[in-house]
Amino acid sequence: MIWDHLRKQLSNDAIGSLGTPTPISGGCISKAFHWGPYFVKTNHITHSAMFRAESDGLMAIADSRCVTTPVVILCSEYDSQAYLVLDHIDMGAPPNPRQLGKELTRMHQQTARNHARPTFGWHQDNFIGSTPQNNGWNANWSDFWRKQRLEPMLNRCLNLGFEFPRSQQLLERIPDILADHHPAPSLVHGDLWTGNADYTTNKTSGSSTPVLFDPAVYLGDREVDLAMSELFGSFGPAFWKGVDEVWPLPPGYQRRRELYNLYHILNHTVLFGASYANQAQTMILNLCR
Amino acid sequence: MIWDHLRKQLSNDAIGSLGTPTPISGGCISKAFHWGPYFVKTNHITHSAMFRAESDGLMAIADSRCVTTPVVILCSEYDSQAYLVLDHIDMGAPPNPRQLGKELTRMHQQTARNHARPTFGWHQDNFIGSTPQNNGWNANWSDFWRKQRLEPMLNRCLNLGFEFPRSQQLLERIPDILADHHPAPSLVHGDLWTGNADYTTNKTSGSSTPVLFDPAVYLGDREVDLAMSELFGSFGPAFWKGVDEVWPLPPGYQRRRELYNLYHILNHTVLFGASYANQAQTMILNLCR
Repeated sequence: MIWDHLRKQLSNDAIGSLGTPTPISGGCISKAFHWGPYFVKTNHITHSAMFRAESDGLMAIADSRCVTTPVVILCSEYDSQAYLVLDHIDMGAPPNPRQLGKELTRMHQQTARNHARPTFGWHQDNFIGSTPQNNGWNANWSDFWRKQRLEPMLNRCLNLGFEFPRSQQLLERIPDILADHHPAPSLVHGDLWTGNADYTTNKTSGSSTPVLFDPAVYLGDREVDLAMSELFGSFGPAFWKGVDEVWPLPPGYQRRRELYNLYHILNHTVLFGASYANQAQTMILNLCR
Repeated sequence: MIWDHLRKQLSNDAIGSLGTPTPISGGCISKAFHWGPYFVKTNHITHSAMFRAESDGLMAIADSRCVTTPVVILCSEYDSQAYLVLDHIDMGAPPNPRQLGKELTRMHQQTARNHARPTFGWHQDNFIGSTPQNNGWNANWSDFWRKQRLEPMLNRCLNLGFEFPRSQQLLERIPDILADHHPAPSLVHGDLWTGNADYTTNKTSGSSTPVLFDPAVYLGDREVDLAMSELFGSFGPAFWKGVDEVWPLPPGYQRRRELYNLYHILNHTVLFGASYANQAQTMILNLCR
């Protein structure tokens, strides 16, 4: 049994009091449990790479020391199951979107790098939802956005029978759309919709502290996080106030937002089908104008 | 072809000049290549977990910002192969063991933690050589050394037909041997024999800088690294001078050294067979005295 295995792997003085894991509604993909001080996800061992990528992303965000994320306790396999054990964080504190905007933007700013080589990308592939996300390195951001993001996702759509007229034209226009835009390679959360952020009460200060989870990190234009935060809901004006206080956006964000969010709408077409295909097509036509 | 794939994954302005990979003698386990600014290891995809663990360990050491390690560029799979791309570092600068002692001990010191829970261990299993290394968490160091280190390794020996009289007695004596020893959980390299350290010339200062590689990291007693550094060769007295300058050892190290190094001699029995079994048996008897 995986729980006996986990008891052994976590053995400490508190182990006797861990009690029974409580199933909770978590991601759509894995089973999730609240177990004493831990938040445990389990899935079939074929999902091991997803947990590894999640663990790697959470640790990268934690290393930036700018935003709170659940601490990774264990990430491994047992028998036919993969598991991920995180610190359980009590969520549901009052929203503090201005603080979220500040902390996220501090992360973007402090991790922005300017290497002569490997710039945009990540050292390993990960997942956007359950879709594999390619992360090879590109020295050029518009090249990255075409080759590692839009092109592979358009190909996935095509394999599922979703063909988008003028998508080839769009791919060729990316360098134009991004001309004069020279983003720094920032560590981005990568899947920052409103469902992947919450708030916890800081035990020392009593204030409401943002928590980010379920990342799909890479080094990219920080605007991909800001764009996605406006795609399914939004954190509201206080969030933008926080962003502006730390590092105001360069001009032209609104146009790039559509280029960046197209990736997620195409992914939703892959994951959830035809209802998103129309939206993707409209975005492609807008961007070709 | 994996090289065409890597060219795409690494695409940047320098890609045209990368030339042909040069095979070099690397680890005993994987194929190794020098390729432009990169050091590339490849192996069958079944070795993917080994590269992931190596990448995770190198990044943990890098994050401590105390000792130089090769930067992880890519760690992934392609077709039936796993690969790991690291920064290529020119080795062979004059030995600087005092600096190595200082930097290693700074890493041990700066990463020493004192959490109420998960203390000794690591968030994922890794490998010691090609032997799987269990890394569950234990609040108690002597418990960790018994349950996550010596017991599993003795069982591996037993499965191969190597039975060690009095090994059970030794396991039960571990709490006695480690009584009054209360190590902090430090990030340890975990496989620090003399072959896993080298020196490079710092481009700015011109001085010889230590480089650590091939780690098997976890949070444990820093003395495991010091003990192993004396097992197959040694870094010499200047190394110890560097250690003492940063964080002198508590009393009783010599006895613990044998307990810690027994793990590696048992592993050598697993990996290389009977020639190490006698040495292991002698150590067990010594420790039972």
